[in-house]
Amino acid sequence: MLRRLHAGPQILVMPNAWDVVSARIFEDAGFAAVATSSAAVAWSLGFPDGSALETEVHLAALERIVHALGVPVSADVENGYAADPAALAAFVRRLDAAGVAGYNLEDTMTPSTVHPLAEARERVRAAREAAPDLFLNARTDLYLAEIGPEKTRLDATVERLRAFADAGADGVFVPGVSDPEIIAALAAATPLPLNVLANPKGPDAAALQRLGVRRVSVGSWPMRRVLGELRAIADELHDHGTFTFARERTLAYGPLNALIAGPGM
Amino acid sequence: MLRRLHAGPQILVMPNAWDVVSARIFEDAGFAAVATSSAAVAWSLGFPDGSALETEVHLAALERIVHALGVPVSADVENGYAADPAALAAFVRRLDAAGVAGYNLEDTMTPSTVHPLAEARERVRAAREAAPDLFLNARTDLYLAEIGPEKTRLDATVERLRAFADAGADGVFVPGVSDPEIIAALAAATPLPLNVLANPKGPDAAALQRLGVRRVSVGSWPMRRVLGELRAIADELHDHGTFTFARERTLAYGPLNALIAGPGM
Repeated sequence: MLRRLHAGPQILVMPNAWDVVSARIFEDAGFAAVATSSAAVAWSLGFPDGSALETEVHLAALERIVHALGVPVSADVENGYAADPAALAAFVRRLDAAGVAGYNLEDTMTPSTVHPLAEARERVRAAREAAPDLFLNARTDLYLAEIGPEKTRLDATVERLRAFADAGADGVFVPGVSDPEIIAALAAATPLPLNVLANPKGPDAAALQRLGVRRVSVGSWPMRRVLGELRAIADELHDHGTFTFARERTLAYGPLNALIAGPGM
Repeated sequence: MLRRLHAGPQILVMPNAWDVVSARIFEDAGFAAVATSSAAVAWSLGFPDGSALETEVHLAALERIVHALGVPVSADVENGYAADPAALAAFVRRLDAAGVAGYNLEDTMTPSTVHPLAEARERVRAAREAAPDLFLNARTDLYLAEIGPEKTRLDATVERLRAFADAGADGVFVPGVSDPEIIAALAAATPLPLNVLANPKGPDAAALQRLGVRRVSVGSWPMRRVLGELRAIADELHDHGTFTFARERTLAYGPLNALIAGPGM
């Protein structure tokens, strides 16, 4: 199902949730699949971003989301919380058991370094073999973490995307690019569906589709936007002791409770 | 500390969080204490409101919040997930071990019925004895769930508030009232600090203070407001494939990550 959604011609717009109710709201809005944002999940559970999330806590959160949804869930799981391919394979098998339909696997070793190419390829291969049925979206962070010299970054990225394809990935993900020329070059250079991360100042989904992109996800933007709203609510409550924030755009108790208690559950 | 905050003369405005990042945002806005909303916690974790939350899942969520915060946390724990006083006492001891500073205990038996008065009193007494140091905010849902005839509801509520005081409660909580006359009558009739639930169309914190209220909490309003925003984001993404939602009121990645990774943790 997730593979079919990447087959085009329509670009797949993937919303990124962080808990059950945010995922149910996206499902209710009509999305055919829902993703998570590992940063948003981590913050919700009290961990900083950057592969610091405890595996058990993360898997439990994913299980709750999968259990609540009727559409496929793609999990964002940072670097798989594993230093070597065997530990990565063990994690991917648990991810499969949690019921997700696919996942993003980063090539980061630390937040500012990536695994060397050969190692990164072996990690994708190990993950592929551990769960042949899951949609494996192999991600490189060369652009997002600004790793290596800028003038060879495009070539180095393409080299990784091809290695990921060789190793059996279903799709490739390059967050941190918004220049239309670079995006088009990446889309042309890889045989697999290309996923990019939305940039509010960059091309919209229709423009990305014209550049050859097959999937756009929104990462932690929705959570960061609603938390900006929460900060404004906190300031109103703290500084003025008034409750005007709830006079507009506020979901009613009954329908929201029904969204959680309802048939999706 | 929580007892001192109820001692007046300033009304205590309590914001209600549902996960670590929402709690940290309230703390960062300057609140001296942060509460949870059991409805919001339940929805975030995939349970409907109404004492359906699994105890282990709820306690783990509370532990994460307490661990992340430097200010006292008051837990909203529905009816204590216990049918009899012994089971309630066992739950309250676990709540104490989780590190909360206080909690709200409802007199609901089911979402639309309350424990008979004598039983409700014994439950407060059992909870009091189980954790003498926690701020016990004893709540009656006669108004919120519209239980019993309207013309005797005020008297029946006052009877319960006095029974809760006899049984050792530190404060009393009557959600579902916004009529200034009723609020003033409740405040005058109880020796304990009175807590009411904010109503966006009712009196603000300053007006509630003048009526004799010592604490106002906001329940699931903040979550329902930010989820209203999330629904608008979902519709923009789904219907238009654009990302303009993130152009305003969006927290930046770095400061948000620092809020979670920072000294509060």
